[in-house]
Amino acid sequence: MDFLKKAYNLMPVLRESIARPVSGIPEGRIMRDGDSFMLDFGTHVVGYVTLAVNVEKPGGDTADSPLAVEFKFFENLCEDRSEVYTGGMSRSWFQVQTVFADNPYAPIELPRRYAFRYVRITFPANTSYAVSYRDCFVRAVTSADESNVAPLPQNTDPLLKKIDSIALLTLKNCMQTVFEDGPKRDRRLWLGDLYLQAKANYCTFKNNDLVLRCLCLFAGLPHADGCLSSAVFQEPVLRGQNWILHDYALFFVGTLADYYRATGRDDVVKELWPVAFRQTEIAYGAFENEGLKAPVNMYFVDWCPGLDKSCAALGILVSMLRDALYLAKIAGTKAQADTLAREIENVSGALAAAYDPSEKIFRTPEGQLSVHSQMWAVLAGVLQPSENASVMRETLRRKDLVRPVTPYAMHFLTEALIRSGLKDEAFDLIKDYWGAMAAKGFDCFPEVFVPENPDASPYGSVAMNSYCHAWSCTPTYFIRTFGI
Amino acid sequence: MDFLKKAYNLMPVLRESIARPVSGIPEGRIMRDGDSFMLDFGTHVVGYVTLAVNVEKPGGDTADSPLAVEFKFFENLCEDRSEVYTGGMSRSWFQVQTVFADNPYAPIELPRRYAFRYVRITFPANTSYAVSYRDCFVRAVTSADESNVAPLPQNTDPLLKKIDSIALLTLKNCMQTVFEDGPKRDRRLWLGDLYLQAKANYCTFKNNDLVLRCLCLFAGLPHADGCLSSAVFQEPVLRGQNWILHDYALFFVGTLADYYRATGRDDVVKELWPVAFRQTEIAYGAFENEGLKAPVNMYFVDWCPGLDKSCAALGILVSMLRDALYLAKIAGTKAQADTLAREIENVSGALAAAYDPSEKIFRTPEGQLSVHSQMWAVLAGVLQPSENASVMRETLRRKDLVRPVTPYAMHFLTEALIRSGLKDEAFDLIKDYWGAMAAKGFDCFPEVFVPENPDASPYGSVAMNSYCHAWSCTPTYFIRTFGI
Repeated sequence: MDFLKKAYNLMPVLRESIARPVSGIPEGRIMRDGDSFMLDFGTHVVGYVTLAVNVEKPGGDTADSPLAVEFKFFENLCEDRSEVYTGGMSRSWFQVQTVFADNPYAPIELPRRYAFRYVRITFPANTSYAVSYRDCFVRAVTSADESNVAPLPQNTDPLLKKIDSIALLTLKNCMQTVFEDGPKRDRRLWLGDLYLQAKANYCTFKNNDLVLRCLCLFAGLPHADGCLSSAVFQEPVLRGQNWILHDYALFFVGTLADYYRATGRDDVVKELWPVAFRQTEIAYGAFENEGLKAPVNMYFVDWCPGLDKSCAALGILVSMLRDALYLAKIAGTKAQADTLAREIENVSGALAAAYDPSEKIFRTPEGQLSVHSQMWAVLAGVLQPSENASVMRETLRRKDLVRPVTPYAMHFLTEALIRSGLKDEAFDLIKDYWGAMAAKGFDCFPEVFVPENPDASPYGSVAMNSYCHAWSCTPTYFIRTFGI
Repeated sequence: MDFLKKAYNLMPVLRESIARPVSGIPEGRIMRDGDSFMLDFGTHVVGYVTLAVNVEKPGGDTADSPLAVEFKFFENLCEDRSEVYTGGMSRSWFQVQTVFADNPYAPIELPRRYAFRYVRITFPANTSYAVSYRDCFVRAVTSADESNVAPLPQNTDPLLKKIDSIALLTLKNCMQTVFEDGPKRDRRLWLGDLYLQAKANYCTFKNNDLVLRCLCLFAGLPHADGCLSSAVFQEPVLRGQNWILHDYALFFVGTLADYYRATGRDDVVKELWPVAFRQTEIAYGAFENEGLKAPVNMYFVDWCPGLDKSCAALGILVSMLRDALYLAKIAGTKAQADTLAREIENVSGALAAAYDPSEKIFRTPEGQLSVHSQMWAVLAGVLQPSENASVMRETLRRKDLVRPVTPYAMHFLTEALIRSGLKDEAFDLIKDYWGAMAAKGFDCFPEVFVPENPDASPYGSVAMNSYCHAWSCTPTYFIRTFGI
């Protein structure tokens, strides 16, 4: 199977629309030599920007020098701190560009794609003539078709409606020629993010071919042992990332299972089954090699400093082995299904050993309590259903657990609450956590949000954070799948 | 006659060649986050630059952020002072560009044309991977055909050979889709510069169609009264400049006369004669309106502060009326020729009145002595030939004359010496003045050169000066036309 060829054939045509700023337009202002203005496009957009100015030359003579124009784009105004950035990521991610237009009368089209709501435009150098504002617009691009999105029921909670609309914009602006992680900076296709984006896609934009294209890209770019890359670069060259994360590789199984649930296409499952099964072999093999323990350094789980990932990793492994068993019944052999069933039993046993029935909580071998251990144990289904609700109630009640810092991990906490029958608590969490972002005026959901720490950043500066990030978009999935 | 259509049809195809740096290549150096290097292309070039780097990423993983590259181009290393420029010209003329390459593996092609010998390349922002030098080249462009240039005789003075080669490069790099003034900054077609470039062209590159194209551009873009613009913009829009300079407008006549002398094409003279004759009407009319004096504010002559231009202006007017009379005999009417003859007599009379036969020198009505008055009076031919040599000897001997500051004015001084029979003195001047530039290591002749003042600039900073400037290229004309 030539997966890359299949992926190429599924390349989406991007939908384009034109958006113009809603405020900050410097009407009639004559500008030169250091003058600047800040345009607000009213909401987050991803696309290609054009600026046009009027040349204001006394006496009507021709502008006789190039026009220097400095652009600085911001998803969030905190990115204006970029000048003092000293973190480890390349400063080249900051969205700035100075153009020297030989023809200042012609519209200036920037060749790169930007993700932003605000743009500051400065004329840093021109002394021999001035300019005034004529027009500025963005040719916004996405592979999402908004006409596929059903309206929410009239009686939907207004806050959930608001959260849903922000989640929709987040997903839409990450849907380009792949499901991108974040359109500003990390434009890669990540398997962990794809798993969540695909769930949100099925109940909104329904671009199922884009999910299939992404599955094929991963399947077409494996490591030598068949393990999938955690991420695929389209730019600068089509390539799988060197990193290996077992949880991300396993989410290929979960994404394929969800794809089948959404589309019923067993032809796709049959094509991709060998790739999916290989991920379980590798992850289970590592578990056995470690003496029936999770190889924790091979799992991402979350960005929490000091998090002991052992229980969460086992929970992820069991969950994905279960999805694999589900797929084996469509595309696998009897022997494969038997193997998976035995593996589920083995890993579940290892995880169950971490359960403290007196406190109704999972404790890692090192004794750590974390939200992550509980939610993944619940999603793995290693306890009786009646126990799950008790574990999740303890998780919400106790204050001594390591807590998630990313919307990504918060997704799995929400899912675990719903799986335990605690739907009201799940929706309270959505309203508390994603609602707090809405209350702060975010028009897309960001990569990192820690309510009690507005400066939280894995990069040493909030200026480098992504403010439209795929893994934060799942409230629309919960709202539209589980209603209220 | 549709002059602009004719000009379009004469658009030259640019000749391209590839040049690479001769020194400064950072062989094998691993660079990131502020590292830079300076390439020296060995000589002045005009064209389009491409840079290619190797991505140096530990472990062979893909570069995961855009590559920021800062380019600073210099014709002369003194342009490195551009950061502190506070003069009146727009800083946007400085040749700088920062590029954010989404694909650092691909060669980076800068879209704008640059004129330079040196380029400093800096990687200001990349912390997550390093790069090393792979290649850098310029696709140099010119409309000059070097195969048309005859070698100088073997026994030519070595210094004159050197000066000739610098002049050739200066002219070549200014020859683009028009005869440009200076390829770095002032890319306009100026009539005063065209007059000199065309003279140098006939005895070197022989692109006579380019001269005709430029004449047609001026003829096609007159002011409402038929007066020609002093300059034509090709960019940002094809347009005549608003300024009017009588000397520049009159040089249309001189350039057309030289074109006929070089090509013998009376069809061209017949087409352009009405335009040429109109310039004499306007300039002579202004002379009459001023009470038979030169309207000095309408003449450029030179950049000398405090220069009284009255004699020089009259000399220019007579010279160009003489060229008009020469053309009238090919394309004009008897009445026009008679008019021109009478005008020459009248203006010559006004100029002759400024002559002091006891001191053998022209003194302006305000009493100023300048080289400019003498050289233009000689070129106007208002004295007997035997007197011309005396005037020019006095000009060279006396120290109390206002002196030229531009190679442009130095051209006419050289021409006046030759016209007076002082060919040795003319070539001594070339060797002294242009030879001093050669001794200073200029690879093209600059816009401004005042041997005793290296900081001379009409713009408040030598960083803004042009270091490859058309009006400085005429030594090749003298060397090749008058030999030695």
